[in-house]
Amino acid sequence: MAVASWPAPYRFQRMSADHAPGQERSEVPEGLRHVDFSHGDVSAFPPPPEVVDAVTAALRDGGRYAYSPYRGHLFARELIAPRLSAFLGEPVDPGSEIIVTPGTQGGLFLALSSLVERGDKVAVVAPDYFANRKIVEYLEATPVPVELGYRTAAGEPALLDLEGLRAAFQSGARLLVFSNPNNPTGAVYTPGDIEAIAGLAAEFDAFVVVDQLYSRQIFDGRAFTHLRAHTRERCLTLLGPSKTESVSGCRVGVAVAPGPVVERMEQLQGIVSLRAAGYTQAALEPWFAETEGWLDQRIAAHALIRDELHEVFTGSGDVAARLTEGGSYLFLDVPAAKGRIDEFVARLRTEAAVTVTRGPEFGDFPASVRLNFSQDHQAAVDAARRIAAVAARL
Amino acid sequence: MAVASWPAPYRFQRMSADHAPGQERSEVPEGLRHVDFSHGDVSAFPPPPEVVDAVTAALRDGGRYAYSPYRGHLFARELIAPRLSAFLGEPVDPGSEIIVTPGTQGGLFLALSSLVERGDKVAVVAPDYFANRKIVEYLEATPVPVELGYRTAAGEPALLDLEGLRAAFQSGARLLVFSNPNNPTGAVYTPGDIEAIAGLAAEFDAFVVVDQLYSRQIFDGRAFTHLRAHTRERCLTLLGPSKTESVSGCRVGVAVAPGPVVERMEQLQGIVSLRAAGYTQAALEPWFAETEGWLDQRIAAHALIRDELHEVFTGSGDVAARLTEGGSYLFLDVPAAKGRIDEFVARLRTEAAVTVTRGPEFGDFPASVRLNFSQDHQAAVDAARRIAAVAARL
Repeated sequence: MAVASWPAPYRFQRMSADHAPGQERSEVPEGLRHVDFSHGDVSAFPPPPEVVDAVTAALRDGGRYAYSPYRGHLFARELIAPRLSAFLGEPVDPGSEIIVTPGTQGGLFLALSSLVERGDKVAVVAPDYFANRKIVEYLEATPVPVELGYRTAAGEPALLDLEGLRAAFQSGARLLVFSNPNNPTGAVYTPGDIEAIAGLAAEFDAFVVVDQLYSRQIFDGRAFTHLRAHTRERCLTLLGPSKTESVSGCRVGVAVAPGPVVERMEQLQGIVSLRAAGYTQAALEPWFAETEGWLDQRIAAHALIRDELHEVFTGSGDVAARLTEGGSYLFLDVPAAKGRIDEFVARLRTEAAVTVTRGPEFGDFPASVRLNFSQDHQAAVDAARRIAAVAARL
Repeated sequence: MAVASWPAPYRFQRMSADHAPGQERSEVPEGLRHVDFSHGDVSAFPPPPEVVDAVTAALRDGGRYAYSPYRGHLFARELIAPRLSAFLGEPVDPGSEIIVTPGTQGGLFLALSSLVERGDKVAVVAPDYFANRKIVEYLEATPVPVELGYRTAAGEPALLDLEGLRAAFQSGARLLVFSNPNNPTGAVYTPGDIEAIAGLAAEFDAFVVVDQLYSRQIFDGRAFTHLRAHTRERCLTLLGPSKTESVSGCRVGVAVAPGPVVERMEQLQGIVSLRAAGYTQAALEPWFAETEGWLDQRIAAHALIRDELHEVFTGSGDVAARLTEGGSYLFLDVPAAKGRIDEFVARLRTEAAVTVTRGPEFGDFPASVRLNFSQDHQAAVDAARRIAAVAARL
């Protein structure tokens, strides 16, 4: 047996990891500025300067930072716990209820690996972050899709299919995983839906993993409802400074959950990667304590990009998109791409110097693509016009 | 069902992760300087200054570093590939044969998860790094122990039980995982054993994961044999700057393996933690290219600590230890601790202000403890005397 034919463990077949968002490489046409919409541009929106200072100081003060408990430095957890308590609306105990993870992705992997048994059913919202489904498959469990109705009239809220969630729980699922704001649509769950999710979790003795990675970046003064405030004991909240704060390069995230779940995640961390990098954990020190006005300014700048992109797309006639309520994603419907989404994505690269993430990654969305519009404003608008042009030519 | 009783997935039961080396916390007596032998002291042996400079520069030059392909920055892989080729004695292709991982631990998890199917048998050396066995159990596979005979007369090489390895392969195992230098004994495998491992892998169509994390730190001018030089196509080599170079706080490691294995590890990285931190990947830039003499000096300083500790222990009569040939570990046999290893470890903390790692983590070693002697020289010697005193009182 040659190594090239070494059989892949079954979990790989289940993961269907052939498309790796953010991994696309190819030639882009000369003369155009390539815009990589698969993630934010940290040159356009750099991290808060305090973050760079904190990590640099940690590197120079090696002994204190290099090694931490697997769940992260206690001093960092103690620093952020009161801030997270204020944000989430329920007390957070720094000793037992927080684990620092290698990015929010690391937290998601540890959380699902700690809660999902092989053969389980797991309720997974569609559309939603691709890794939710892939990790469930990796664990040899079965995702049960629950629809988020996001294609609404302008101004109408996206609503979760609560009957679908009930049916998933009735069919045996004991876990729901979803992101709020929703990745990829940028929809924010209504207070009613969040309360209903908490209610169903209690009714069915279930647990909920909610990825709130983008929950500090809410537009138009909209209210945001934290699930933890409604069901502290049945809820694991994923947070982190990777998106709005542009700190992805540090790979630090945070999970807030009941002690026994944190305990189990930490055991697993001990064999997966030991800990988030000791030095970059210092990036959490200024988190939720940035200079007055920093966050407002960042939200305002993203709202302006959102508005202009949305205008370009809705004005084109060939592309439709829901107006983002939170986070930096736009999920485009491109009806002409149906049946040839890969061709569309490839032509966006070769004809428009644009990288996007394909809709099928997020569920059964054969004619959609996702954009992260945390980009240089003018470059993003120019690229959006090129996207609309390619869609028109399809 | 309360969350506290949420059933742990079966893989947790298999992992038996109750003891978490490096996680021990407890009161130490006043007046004594606590020595944490569970890992090296980066204040005593700091990272090469170039590492701190490189990561600091990366943080300030965010756009280039923040995001990388899941397998790591190409420019970093291209920089280290020729150095790794020279070190390992076989060409290493930077595009297809290297993946940068969140520490060498991250590489080990990705490697075993990419190669081990549920229900497989996996040959695991005993004693060896605890995570080898725990990850195999996490994957619901079965470790088959193969003995390393390390309790030899002074000056005699440790030898692997090659007949045991053959029997493991005969019983169906198709994978061997081991560390060289051996963790926890500091034994270096003989050229004959490495060649025999390569030969058995070929004979049984098997694959070998070798953790060479400490392979730059070889004492007494001893030769070190790289498995990859004998079986490039059947071998995955784990390396990284976390130990000798004291860069553990950056969480960067490297795996060198055939392209198809790297490919699969990268797919998995995409759901486990996306990538090693983009900024700290810069720590690889000066790796294997430190200031002339830096490595020799580091090895010499560690050899002096080793010699003095070894003298303290062998002179005591209550503790025996093999002289470390590579790396910074000493594995102590404390016959009086048999049947009460936990009491011994606890008394070391409370009576001697010393933290060590218990022998049973490494296999069936009920009366052993492991020390990482990369510590302040005098503090380590003082602590060794206190360890010998506690052993004498047992």
